[in-house]
Amino acid sequence: MDGFFKKVGDEIWFEEIDRDSLKISYKIKDIIYSKRSKFQDIYIVNSNDFGKMLVIDGVVQTTERDGFIYNEMISHVPLSMHENPKNVLIIGGGDLGAAFEATKYPVERIDVVEIDEDVVKASLEYLKEISKDLKDERVNFIFEDGAKFVREKKNEYDIIIVDSSDPIGPAEVLFSENFYRDVYNALKEDGIMACQSESPILYPDIFRATYKKLKNIFPIVKIFIATVPTYPGGFWSFTIGSKKYDKINKVNDIDTKYVTKEILESSFNIPKFVQNIIK
Amino acid sequence: MDGFFKKVGDEIWFEEIDRDSLKISYKIKDIIYSKRSKFQDIYIVNSNDFGKMLVIDGVVQTTERDGFIYNEMISHVPLSMHENPKNVLIIGGGDLGAAFEATKYPVERIDVVEIDEDVVKASLEYLKEISKDLKDERVNFIFEDGAKFVREKKNEYDIIIVDSSDPIGPAEVLFSENFYRDVYNALKEDGIMACQSESPILYPDIFRATYKKLKNIFPIVKIFIATVPTYPGGFWSFTIGSKKYDKINKVNDIDTKYVTKEILESSFNIPKFVQNIIK
Repeated sequence: MDGFFKKVGDEIWFEEIDRDSLKISYKIKDIIYSKRSKFQDIYIVNSNDFGKMLVIDGVVQTTERDGFIYNEMISHVPLSMHENPKNVLIIGGGDLGAAFEATKYPVERIDVVEIDEDVVKASLEYLKEISKDLKDERVNFIFEDGAKFVREKKNEYDIIIVDSSDPIGPAEVLFSENFYRDVYNALKEDGIMACQSESPILYPDIFRATYKKLKNIFPIVKIFIATVPTYPGGFWSFTIGSKKYDKINKVNDIDTKYVTKEILESSFNIPKFVQNIIK
Repeated sequence: MDGFFKKVGDEIWFEEIDRDSLKISYKIKDIIYSKRSKFQDIYIVNSNDFGKMLVIDGVVQTTERDGFIYNEMISHVPLSMHENPKNVLIIGGGDLGAAFEATKYPVERIDVVEIDEDVVKASLEYLKEISKDLKDERVNFIFEDGAKFVREKKNEYDIIIVDSSDPIGPAEVLFSENFYRDVYNALKEDGIMACQSESPILYPDIFRATYKKLKNIFPIVKIFIATVPTYPGGFWSFTIGSKKYDKINKVNDIDTKYVTKEILESSFNIPKFVQNIIK
């Protein structure tokens, strides 16, 4: 157990620290998996309130109880904007929740490019509630740097989902304008990218910068919001960069826990203070 | 400083504990106000991340940085469903954020019934970011038990907003079916009530029970959701009981930070898992 975990009597608590002024602590039933990988500290724990959790470098990435909100929103919004998505790229997303959502569409190929093979292995083995033990022949795993991978692709994907962790550590490059330009070039002429763009309440600067960078590159940039209870601030933004489509165009009849046709169709209705941040 | 506050070196931290398995800790710049009132422990503190915070019995009630989301949603949704609201009753809501939102409408009377006069006094004096130092001759303060007050009113209000704390302590009665029946009777024949109904993720039982109780009384019951970053779980529900109106009918052109016409009109689009809880 490293510094993120504390023993209090018989209890184990995991404590996430955000910006040295906000802490969220979860009582833990047990630590199921832990590994110092080549890139980061990976834990899968069983928590009292959110079920199984994937924790990387002391930050909760996804949980059994609320991960579906994030995974459904980051995938179904772009996949429902596109009229006929065939080739999907997911950068990051090693928990495979977004990849699983993409398999619900009649797509031909889903490339998952995750820098850390250990995250995928651990999720497949110990986090089946989210990874669904993903076995779908359309899914290809590529274990390498997503920024490097996408730089070498041109005009290849209909949808690119950037399912990154926070912009510190290995994911920092996934918030750079050069990276977004490479993503643009890797997309087909009617392609769409979606990324998580942090909390407009706690990190308005990162949120605004992401929007501005994408605005420099894509003709259409849209924001949507979802609650992610286990992300500090809870109020979470996602940003779309699109070459052609500017709204939800085709809602597939798929099985979900969070999104509905109505939620997808109203997803770009964002609060006034969020509009003001990017004015 | 009581048990909710901790000194760590030079720093002061406030720690909110939810159900003995989830803690949220905020670094505090200073404690501006504290009083053990007749009913509860009241603190107003200045936090690093959320600005000023009202804390009652160890639970964050509202903050400068995110309180507007809650206050706008609990008031503008019912006020925009009604075609011509004149008489408004707010039960609880001692921070006066919801009352201030109601003053933006051409209503005739806003009765604020708060059991604890000290909460209102402290908010007017030390929490002007939310109370706006409310001076509006349409607002009447009544310091008594909201449940008792509403029991004695018949056919009097167009809108009743139940802006309560959690269903433990003084607010427990505000979650009872008898209370909701009294609210029904205090409303005019086209009246609408709105209440906060806790987190469907962390407290699905309270959420479901509130819905079922209102369903036993009101012909129309609707749910809406908003993110409240400083409430544990973040994902927060509100429930409407209505005698006649079943949708947003009149969006006034008012100054807001959160709601827009589009957000109001799509507010009843709720996620599938929330629909399933109340099936």
